[in-house]
Amino acid sequence: MAPKSNHLLLKAARGEEVDKVPVWVMRQAGRYLPEFREERSKSDFFTICQTPELACKITLQPVERFPLDAAIIFSDILVIPQALGMEVIMQPGEGPVFPNPLKISDVAKLSEASVVPDVLSYVFDAIRLTVDKLSGRIPLIGFAGAPWTLMAYMVEGKGSKTFSAAKSWLYKHPVLSHQLLERLTESTILYLVGQVQAGAQILQVFESNAEYLTPDLFRTFALPYLQKICDTVKQKLKDMELPVVPMIVFPKGGHFALSALSKTNYDVIGVDWTIEPSVARSLVGPNKTLQGNLDPCALYGDKASIEEAVRRMLEGFGRSRYIANLGHGIYPDVNPDSVATFVDAVHRFSSQPATIS
Amino acid sequence: MAPKSNHLLLKAARGEEVDKVPVWVMRQAGRYLPEFREERSKSDFFTICQTPELACKITLQPVERFPLDAAIIFSDILVIPQALGMEVIMQPGEGPVFPNPLKISDVAKLSEASVVPDVLSYVFDAIRLTVDKLSGRIPLIGFAGAPWTLMAYMVEGKGSKTFSAAKSWLYKHPVLSHQLLERLTESTILYLVGQVQAGAQILQVFESNAEYLTPDLFRTFALPYLQKICDTVKQKLKDMELPVVPMIVFPKGGHFALSALSKTNYDVIGVDWTIEPSVARSLVGPNKTLQGNLDPCALYGDKASIEEAVRRMLEGFGRSRYIANLGHGIYPDVNPDSVATFVDAVHRFSSQPATIS
Repeated sequence: MAPKSNHLLLKAARGEEVDKVPVWVMRQAGRYLPEFREERSKSDFFTICQTPELACKITLQPVERFPLDAAIIFSDILVIPQALGMEVIMQPGEGPVFPNPLKISDVAKLSEASVVPDVLSYVFDAIRLTVDKLSGRIPLIGFAGAPWTLMAYMVEGKGSKTFSAAKSWLYKHPVLSHQLLERLTESTILYLVGQVQAGAQILQVFESNAEYLTPDLFRTFALPYLQKICDTVKQKLKDMELPVVPMIVFPKGGHFALSALSKTNYDVIGVDWTIEPSVARSLVGPNKTLQGNLDPCALYGDKASIEEAVRRMLEGFGRSRYIANLGHGIYPDVNPDSVATFVDAVHRFSSQPATIS
Repeated sequence: MAPKSNHLLLKAARGEEVDKVPVWVMRQAGRYLPEFREERSKSDFFTICQTPELACKITLQPVERFPLDAAIIFSDILVIPQALGMEVIMQPGEGPVFPNPLKISDVAKLSEASVVPDVLSYVFDAIRLTVDKLSGRIPLIGFAGAPWTLMAYMVEGKGSKTFSAAKSWLYKHPVLSHQLLERLTESTILYLVGQVQAGAQILQVFESNAEYLTPDLFRTFALPYLQKICDTVKQKLKDMELPVVPMIVFPKGGHFALSALSKTNYDVIGVDWTIEPSVARSLVGPNKTLQGNLDPCALYGDKASIEEAVRRMLEGFGRSRYIANLGHGIYPDVNPDSVATFVDAVHRFSSQPATIS
């Protein structure tokens, strides 16, 4: 099925005029859906990722429930460290855990980036299957974790409130850190190109651990790699005569990074809930699409309060160059009805010309 | 011992001219010090807080090691929830935990704010003892947790990466949330006034959980209470003919809150490591002292890299209206020698007229 280039989400990403604001939800196929929990009770998390039919099925679950403007392939950012040879398990209640976090002496033992497309061919298969099932109805988003975000998990071994172990590498072992980040960058480039080859129509790079960095560390250890990923992926797609898809970067907690990211070739910049729409817009200027930034906890409110929050958000961002989303992945205890309210409110309010300019 | 009003830290807080930049370290008496761990191996955390001689001893430990410009009374922000009737225990490796987190039906059962000065008289005793031992050498900082930050722990029951349980109250139960925040505000006012009465010469209010709020939630559920605390404490001190001490507010992760806080009566605004000094200054304007913001992980670097980070920080903030500090509490695995390097570098570089303006 040939992808359509006039999808609402793709138009918004490219800054074209839209008649309503597109919307999707980070982690939209996840634990808040009973049909996901049902599937998850039968299979291990990474088994689902590695089984194209299951990954496809779960990718489509939210799309069948809500009139979302994109699907996002069900996978995990930590498949890259896995492909490079590290073990990752999903610990109930804790999230992903590396039983053997990366040690200094391990960096040289990681696999070459060139293995990634082979090892992760199951993701490409899942994408092919999903694009086929979507039949061009809405676009499919491919994604990857950004190098610093992956490094933070690999070194720390699990989630953390400070990521101080991983950050200590940046201060103590800057050369080795750059080597590791370079390996992750090469891997991510191959991985993202493979996703587009398989049919992904837009790509998001998750810099979920931006918030632990200082502006200086971001400039040194994150920005150059984010830039390289965007530039090289787009160049490779061009060289391969594949569609040069729009790219989204989401620096969670990276308010200090927005201005610098506006000077890169990313088409869309995601923002979390801690920033006013007007501040985000003034930091990135008029030439980027913004994505976000409803507080995931706003979905705990009643219908009227969700609608009010959406209305304020739309007023803040305007209708052009904007993709509605949460400011972070949806939380597992949210009522699916609240997602329906959110998606409907975005579409309804933004298609009323009087409300949103 | 009558407090001196010409201490370096107090002068910087009031915006007076200084010949070098004052420095202290958040959580300066803590787990990174072997002498603290020694004491802690003998007594429970809250037993130390509740025993004035031990709290005084630990408060003085870092002051004996490093030429710091202030001591901060050893205690914990969660003594207020304790005083209001909640149980808090210090769980090894996890931090403070409420075995019974606050439920909706519990809010009405919390003690009246008026009990706080009696229940927490042990803190006032510790302050009296410490001020006496300090003999006016450096000032003693008193402190409290801000109402939202306390509420977040009380409802969540422990630390969290999202504080989604506590935040859900703000969306689902706004009226009850305001009642709780009001009770915490009243308690904090009485507690801080009592600390000054006992001899504290400057006060810091820790809004450590600002980072979980949106700008809207901050304006509704945090800012009014922070303002009330500052205004009422200062008014009460004036009415009681006590010294109207400078007050510091530290909204961790609250980059979005800096501009609003600059319009309050706080004298000093603390900033974490995610914000450039120049951005912080432009957000708060010229009439506040800034405090912060070295990345706590910078202390993992070697001597030269710590000195370089301090030099850049001092260049960014300048010498006037600035108090050097970390951007968050010091981490337990830091080498005390690195603290010595940090403190020395602040004093040395900032007293060289050619280096820092």
